[in-house]
Amino acid sequence: MLSKLYSQNIGKRSVIRECFEYSKQRAAVIGAENVFDFSIGNPSVPPPAEVDKAIVNIMENLNPIAAHGYPSAEGDSAVRAKIAENLNKKYGTDYTEKNIFMTTGAAAALGICFNSLTDRDAGDEIITFAPFFPEYTVFVQSAGAKLVVIPADIDSFQINFEEFEKAINEHTKAVLINSPNNPCGVVYSEETIKKLAAILEKKQREYGRSIYIISDEPYREIVFKGFEVPYVPNYYDNTLVCYSYSKSLSIPGERIGYIAFTNKAKHANILLGVIAAAARSMTYVGVPMMFQQVIKECDGLTSDTTVYETNKNILYKGLTEIGYTCVEPGGTFYAFPRSLEPDAVAFCEKARKYDLVLVPGDGFGCPGHFRIAYCTDTDKVERSLEKFRLLAEEYGVKA
Amino acid sequence: MLSKLYSQNIGKRSVIRECFEYSKQRAAVIGAENVFDFSIGNPSVPPPAEVDKAIVNIMENLNPIAAHGYPSAEGDSAVRAKIAENLNKKYGTDYTEKNIFMTTGAAAALGICFNSLTDRDAGDEIITFAPFFPEYTVFVQSAGAKLVVIPADIDSFQINFEEFEKAINEHTKAVLINSPNNPCGVVYSEETIKKLAAILEKKQREYGRSIYIISDEPYREIVFKGFEVPYVPNYYDNTLVCYSYSKSLSIPGERIGYIAFTNKAKHANILLGVIAAAARSMTYVGVPMMFQQVIKECDGLTSDTTVYETNKNILYKGLTEIGYTCVEPGGTFYAFPRSLEPDAVAFCEKARKYDLVLVPGDGFGCPGHFRIAYCTDTDKVERSLEKFRLLAEEYGVKA
Repeated sequence: MLSKLYSQNIGKRSVIRECFEYSKQRAAVIGAENVFDFSIGNPSVPPPAEVDKAIVNIMENLNPIAAHGYPSAEGDSAVRAKIAENLNKKYGTDYTEKNIFMTTGAAAALGICFNSLTDRDAGDEIITFAPFFPEYTVFVQSAGAKLVVIPADIDSFQINFEEFEKAINEHTKAVLINSPNNPCGVVYSEETIKKLAAILEKKQREYGRSIYIISDEPYREIVFKGFEVPYVPNYYDNTLVCYSYSKSLSIPGERIGYIAFTNKAKHANILLGVIAAAARSMTYVGVPMMFQQVIKECDGLTSDTTVYETNKNILYKGLTEIGYTCVEPGGTFYAFPRSLEPDAVAFCEKARKYDLVLVPGDGFGCPGHFRIAYCTDTDKVERSLEKFRLLAEEYGVKA
Repeated sequence: MLSKLYSQNIGKRSVIRECFEYSKQRAAVIGAENVFDFSIGNPSVPPPAEVDKAIVNIMENLNPIAAHGYPSAEGDSAVRAKIAENLNKKYGTDYTEKNIFMTTGAAAALGICFNSLTDRDAGDEIITFAPFFPEYTVFVQSAGAKLVVIPADIDSFQINFEEFEKAINEHTKAVLINSPNNPCGVVYSEETIKKLAAILEKKQREYGRSIYIISDEPYREIVFKGFEVPYVPNYYDNTLVCYSYSKSLSIPGERIGYIAFTNKAKHANILLGVIAAAARSMTYVGVPMMFQQVIKECDGLTSDTTVYETNKNILYKGLTEIGYTCVEPGGTFYAFPRSLEPDAVAFCEKARKYDLVLVPGDGFGCPGHFRIAYCTDTDKVERSLEKFRLLAEEYGVKA
């Protein structure tokens, strides 16, 4: 008598959540310091001090009725203007507040884009590339469209262009990318973005209509030495950027981000209206006001994320020395090595013997790999290497 | 090339927003103090001091990583337990945290309930009663169901039971009520709730399946002398309560509320799971963490809302003395008198001559009436009566 769809989905909790629950139980037995829980991508560093300062400032200086009053659907004008100004400085764009729509985090931003670009049950397709964040499937289905997954190029985790070109057809409404990538940490090179843009320009001409890039960028600010994240709208006009402050400011619980688009986008003059209409129908009334004001002060800042790079260096060097195969992460706080047997689920199960809690790649559309979320303290990362060594020995892998 | 549905909806801004924009423009010309803007239901009193105290407490005493970390999908356990405890004290229920699902305000709560109780494009119907909040139409359609509206009983704004019974059929999945009511301020009497429950019990037996009440209760705490709001789950087991702190704590911009259901609900054992699955597919990841912690401290408190009752008394007495017909509001900060000509849109247009900004009842499914949102200062309410008198004179109405 309840919704059939959602009744079926009860208890289908994510593998990541299951890992997290297992870790908690195991920690109760042997102590949290002895459980190498690499399952959850929760930032391990505090927000910058400016976040608290901004909150104090709001309480001391703003009229409390206005400060907590109804937001406008698009977000506070001054906040959006500030974000536009910062993006212009950083990327040479020509944004104003009219290019920015505030959202309650990247999940909302993505859902709103999927709904804005597709028609329900019309056979519309959105292409993405393995490995990818599992919620993409849920959110695209929920918009009544179909997620088409291009298999990973597991040697580089750049794009498998041959498969990509074959997958584009008259139903393709958008291409969804995520660089720096969850779960593999890889950053798309400028060459990759240029090639992607060139193919899409060609296909737009071929089909006589727009194909958008949806660029999911919550990790844009977490980039390691030697890597750079190209700003996609500077390479392809029809781009919708979905941004979140969850990782850059370590505030995933406050649910704040935005959608940005350039003035060169084909539908620039109506995009903000379509986005607002889609958000409204999804029951989004507006973005929490206090953290909009926080963002006005803190956009452009980041937490001190150097620990992620330290951990990456230790893990990448350590794991490859042991004999694991891993593409070097260029950002995020994830690595995505190959499992030592083809069945990554069995491999991750075996890893638990050494109290390593790892997430199999299957849920990310990339079997034979596992995700390590190294947003944790460096001491634990260092101590984990011995465990990874013992696990490898079981498989007869020796450095 | 963008979504057809949402492209059509561009610029369909609500009448209320249009009024609000008009008021701003007019205020720039004649001064805000001379515009009697009764259009927007934005609380006019500040949050209780405990809200700021709770925020300071979070900053001083909680680990900032956890305080701003990912929320669990259902909401923080301790917050939900506190809400359950307070409801039990107030209404004699037997809730635990398992009966509460946190949401980003009542809009999200409603959307999640609609999705949880209906199947998309299966002909499912949700019945509501005029006058009703216009967004109901958008949210129900967006779940792929149909909103069926029962015409108002304009003499009492209780329920037109004859029409209601006729409208219930094999497609009826839920009945959506809103008491105290936006836009008319009327509170359903205990007699009304009992009769509603009795009819639904009978219809459940007749059709051999559940029909839920969805009780939208953002104004539950704003009730005037001589009125009481019956707690619906104590009269009907299959009730989903949608609550919001927007009005009780004057924090509509922070988007926080919850869904509650009793242990006697037919699907009590699976409801939390279905609700979580629906919320997930709508891209709701969780409710902002800082304000969840605020609610743990402030649930059960309210802003000082006495000004709303003062204003109601002045307006109700004043308008009826002038000759307007109005059902006495039992709560909220709205009144919903009859317009002095059948066309409420024309009437509200005429009212602007006197700088009275009023919202016609048509959008609320109840033509021939207009809404006054008197969440404003009492001086303005008092001064407005002369304007209402002049307006009435134009129609030849004399006290």
